[in-house]
Amino acid sequence: MAASPHPAIVLVRPQLGQNIGKAARAMLNFGLTDMRLVAPRDGWPNPDAGPAASGADVVLERARLFDTVQEAIADCSTVYASTVRRRDLVMPVVTPEAMAEDIHASDAASAILFGPERSGLETEEVAMATAIVTVPINPEFGSLNLAQAVILLAYEWSKSNTLAVPPDKELEPAAPHAELEGLIAQLDSELFDKGYFHPPSRTQATRNTLRTIFTKTGWSSREVKAIRGVVRALVGPPRNRG
Amino acid sequence: MAASPHPAIVLVRPQLGQNIGKAARAMLNFGLTDMRLVAPRDGWPNPDAGPAASGADVVLERARLFDTVQEAIADCSTVYASTVRRRDLVMPVVTPEAMAEDIHASDAASAILFGPERSGLETEEVAMATAIVTVPINPEFGSLNLAQAVILLAYEWSKSNTLAVPPDKELEPAAPHAELEGLIAQLDSELFDKGYFHPPSRTQATRNTLRTIFTKTGWSSREVKAIRGVVRALVGPPRNRG
Repeated sequence: MAASPHPAIVLVRPQLGQNIGKAARAMLNFGLTDMRLVAPRDGWPNPDAGPAASGADVVLERARLFDTVQEAIADCSTVYASTVRRRDLVMPVVTPEAMAEDIHASDAASAILFGPERSGLETEEVAMATAIVTVPINPEFGSLNLAQAVILLAYEWSKSNTLAVPPDKELEPAAPHAELEGLIAQLDSELFDKGYFHPPSRTQATRNTLRTIFTKTGWSSREVKAIRGVVRALVGPPRNRG
Repeated sequence: MAASPHPAIVLVRPQLGQNIGKAARAMLNFGLTDMRLVAPRDGWPNPDAGPAASGADVVLERARLFDTVQEAIADCSTVYASTVRRRDLVMPVVTPEAMAEDIHASDAASAILFGPERSGLETEEVAMATAIVTVPINPEFGSLNLAQAVILLAYEWSKSNTLAVPPDKELEPAAPHAELEGLIAQLDSELFDKGYFHPPSRTQATRNTLRTIFTKTGWSSREVKAIRGVVRALVGPPRNRG
């Protein structure tokens, strides 16, 4: 299966160069490199962007400058406007997750629009989008800045991307049951010698409890061996440290 | 249906007050308010935190200060360490999504540990966690700052908040972390007396291994007590069976 095109990140009239740099860093963390700038307030390039990008210079170097949103998204079939719901527009409103799924399911070029830091996107700009994408947020405290909005959407896109590194789950497998039985038998024998199973009427219940406790651990062969060594050390004489 | 407890966000030795403020803002955006600070470099309160919180003052006001990670997570049964995979520790590594699902499925108190800005968590601190949580990131450019790591995990937690399902099994809850620490300290002391930690150069690695082995068990308070009794029996003299 061919990978779907990566979405372009379109910053519409961004105010601070620092925020453009932070957005670049947020993008590259999740493998996005197509940044498009629409009429940045302080022009472009902006000397404040580089330091804030923390090494994501490649995104800034490749960033393309446009005069209008229309020009910036001219090659994109699907466009999402990152904003809160707009009562003045009747448009689909999707979650970041649904947006990511739609982008991955499509072969078409896509873009995500982000408005200026203070005012957000104009109604006409939102209206150019296929859908609004809204991060579900605390209704009593919604305060996402530009770079945070970019990183959350980039993260959602990346999560379902094949290029994203899967979590490394090379855990050691649980030990075969026989090894656990070996540990339990060792412990049983040592505890018996110490008079632990007392009174006799409780012996079987105590053994069952210990068996349950050790069976639920999920310990690997290596871990079972380590615990057998611990038990030997506990019952043995102090070791010569010389 | 009762909601599962919200996770505590534990910032371990954070350096800049500004980043503590940004983390508070990130948290409150997604409804998290339980911030715990372990030995912040510049003390607490920190005048740089408030302005960076952009209105999330309630989180800073309620933040609690601790000297050690152990104290900060003493009441938490499930602890996630936000870090990249550590080759020196054999522990489960989960995605933010899997972490969020686990937290929602449990009635137990949970915490997420975040290390200092530059160095991240120490190995001994990671070893105190139940699992590592890693944001899948661009392998060629991984550069998440503290507040970004907090916001991504808070977002994932919040996303599945409304979809939370009650746990389907009436298992005994895992013991609070402080009880596991008690067992580990007891074992450590007994093993030290037996000369188990030898040679000295391997002592810390051996301690980390044991910590990981016991932290992963999911033992309940009752089970931790039983094992403490087992350790006492193993090191003690044979009991009078009369």
